[in-house]
Amino acid sequence: MLAETIAAVRPADPQALADARAHQDRLTKPRGSLGVLEEIAVRLAGAAGVTPPPMPEPAALAIFAADHGVYARGVSPWPQEVTVQMVANFLAGGAVANAFAAQAGASVTVVDVGVAADLPGAPDLVDRKVAYGTADMTQGPAMSADQVLQALEAGIGVARELVAKGARCLITGDMGIANTTASAALISVFTGKDPSEVTGRGTGVDDETYERKIGVVREALRVNALPGAFEAGEALRALAAVGGFEHAAIAGFILGGAAARVPVVLDGVIAGAAALVAAALAPASVDHCVAGHRSAEPGHAAALAHLGLRPLVDLELRLGEGTGGLLAHPTLCAAVRVMHEVATFDSAGVTEKSV
Amino acid sequence: MLAETIAAVRPADPQALADARAHQDRLTKPRGSLGVLEEIAVRLAGAAGVTPPPMPEPAALAIFAADHGVYARGVSPWPQEVTVQMVANFLAGGAVANAFAAQAGASVTVVDVGVAADLPGAPDLVDRKVAYGTADMTQGPAMSADQVLQALEAGIGVARELVAKGARCLITGDMGIANTTASAALISVFTGKDPSEVTGRGTGVDDETYERKIGVVREALRVNALPGAFEAGEALRALAAVGGFEHAAIAGFILGGAAARVPVVLDGVIAGAAALVAAALAPASVDHCVAGHRSAEPGHAAALAHLGLRPLVDLELRLGEGTGGLLAHPTLCAAVRVMHEVATFDSAGVTEKSV
Repeated sequence: MLAETIAAVRPADPQALADARAHQDRLTKPRGSLGVLEEIAVRLAGAAGVTPPPMPEPAALAIFAADHGVYARGVSPWPQEVTVQMVANFLAGGAVANAFAAQAGASVTVVDVGVAADLPGAPDLVDRKVAYGTADMTQGPAMSADQVLQALEAGIGVARELVAKGARCLITGDMGIANTTASAALISVFTGKDPSEVTGRGTGVDDETYERKIGVVREALRVNALPGAFEAGEALRALAAVGGFEHAAIAGFILGGAAARVPVVLDGVIAGAAALVAAALAPASVDHCVAGHRSAEPGHAAALAHLGLRPLVDLELRLGEGTGGLLAHPTLCAAVRVMHEVATFDSAGVTEKSV
Repeated sequence: MLAETIAAVRPADPQALADARAHQDRLTKPRGSLGVLEEIAVRLAGAAGVTPPPMPEPAALAIFAADHGVYARGVSPWPQEVTVQMVANFLAGGAVANAFAAQAGASVTVVDVGVAADLPGAPDLVDRKVAYGTADMTQGPAMSADQVLQALEAGIGVARELVAKGARCLITGDMGIANTTASAALISVFTGKDPSEVTGRGTGVDDETYERKIGVVREALRVNALPGAFEAGEALRALAAVGGFEHAAIAGFILGGAAARVPVVLDGVIAGAAALVAAALAPASVDHCVAGHRSAEPGHAAALAHLGLRPLVDLELRLGEGTGGLLAHPTLCAAVRVMHEVATFDSAGVTEKSV
């Protein structure tokens, strides 16, 4: 399933890109006056292989929830049971992600890929639990090779199901206490940056915890013999060593969306780390991704720079759950809608500028 | 009508601000994790005088169209008739503003406050024409005192009518070839910055035109004996000297929205210039404004800094029409929706962090 999905990921179509650029210049607006929105519409045309690209509506948010063995190292001020409590909150419709999804008209699916507790069944909860949390990455690999594959394929499966149900845009979401620690480790490996440059304060840690968090990331890399600069072909080993089940699942979700030519809006730092994995497995998958927002986590900027993505929203969010991706969705729709509905200079009888 | 409207503008309510801040901290998310969105929701609560504030839906965009005598000085590469052609484009639904409004579920009203041509009647066109364009501000005042009042009251009237029809958020829009020149002059007067710091390239001028444009702004200020730093009480004189009919109308629109306690989303540099006028007339009107986006025009950043507003969208747009305001509207709705729909730690049974 993974190999087949990777093989199905196509790069941006050059003809659709060229057509989209030419179309932008004929619309009744000064050339380039829509700034980043023009680039984003062109990008989606290339990804879809057609100009104008399909409207990225309706959107579907998938929140991948999992726990982390590294939590035991004191990297978060939050109790680990908050992961399962927040899953219940998502299912009851009470979280920020639910409010933003309602605003964007997006569906919300919660996927248990590794929460450290048994969850009661619910209509919007998909059970793909690989284990009750990962192992502590400072003691050895967080996941086995089999577990990584299972989580990746869970993400591919969810992407396929949502697209089959009619989703025309996928939005990544995550929930997992301590998952910014695993994200920092992955981003350090894949970008070659030092842990101190890519580790952040997550959902709020004090100075002492912050220093410990950097040390934990450094230790995890050393114990797992991970290079400062990532070597090609080792993506799955790195993911197993220092990733989380939700990172693997989101990487699969990205690959699944890319294979179906449905755009994937990345949320924050967890999605950025997962996208680095997806890009290592299938470089063309980046062509199908849109960076929803720039989170306050320093590792996120490093991940986006490595991927060559510019975020649409930059409002100092540091919540996760998919909130940054959901917030970007109306902008994405607006960018594409321009390609469908705006008149050209010729059709509207508007005179072009003289110089 | 102007005096009555100014008298009705109330500053943010301190109790509603305090209630909104306290409410934000009880919601199931790490404190402050929604970044700028928390500030914006608190701001709207203060403006409305109640927590949570009403949802800012539906929104109504008003595009104020007018021409400028200073066009004759060669400050724009676009033919002046593009103003009237674009009005026709708005009414036919073919402009970018129409596509963005459709995406945001906003109505579009076009107001002729001074287009230099007769316009055929249309259902969505409001005729408030003051004159066939302003006079050339490098030869003396662009408008008479009576004309300024007429345009201001046109804006107030449109705001009142849209609110009476059910709008719960007003979005400013503008159309007028050469209106970034008048905006630069107003911003220079109200912020005390030199014309070279606040004059931009508008919808695309070459180096030679750009230098000429700065010189024209400088000349207009000199001819109209306007101080480098603005002196209180002279707001209406400055507006008459170097503003446009759409600047006056948008200033009125802002005052009308503020008086009705309906939030006003400012679009780009033209709205920023108009908001400086509104703030000089009624300082509390700023409490009811939200900066939709940061345009690529340098004067816009100066205006926003002077008003103390932080824009929601920063995507290098330089189109006008209300496009930046429309793009910000879903974010505004998302920020307010959080106050209405998200569970508290207590109600959701989620444990708070320990440090």
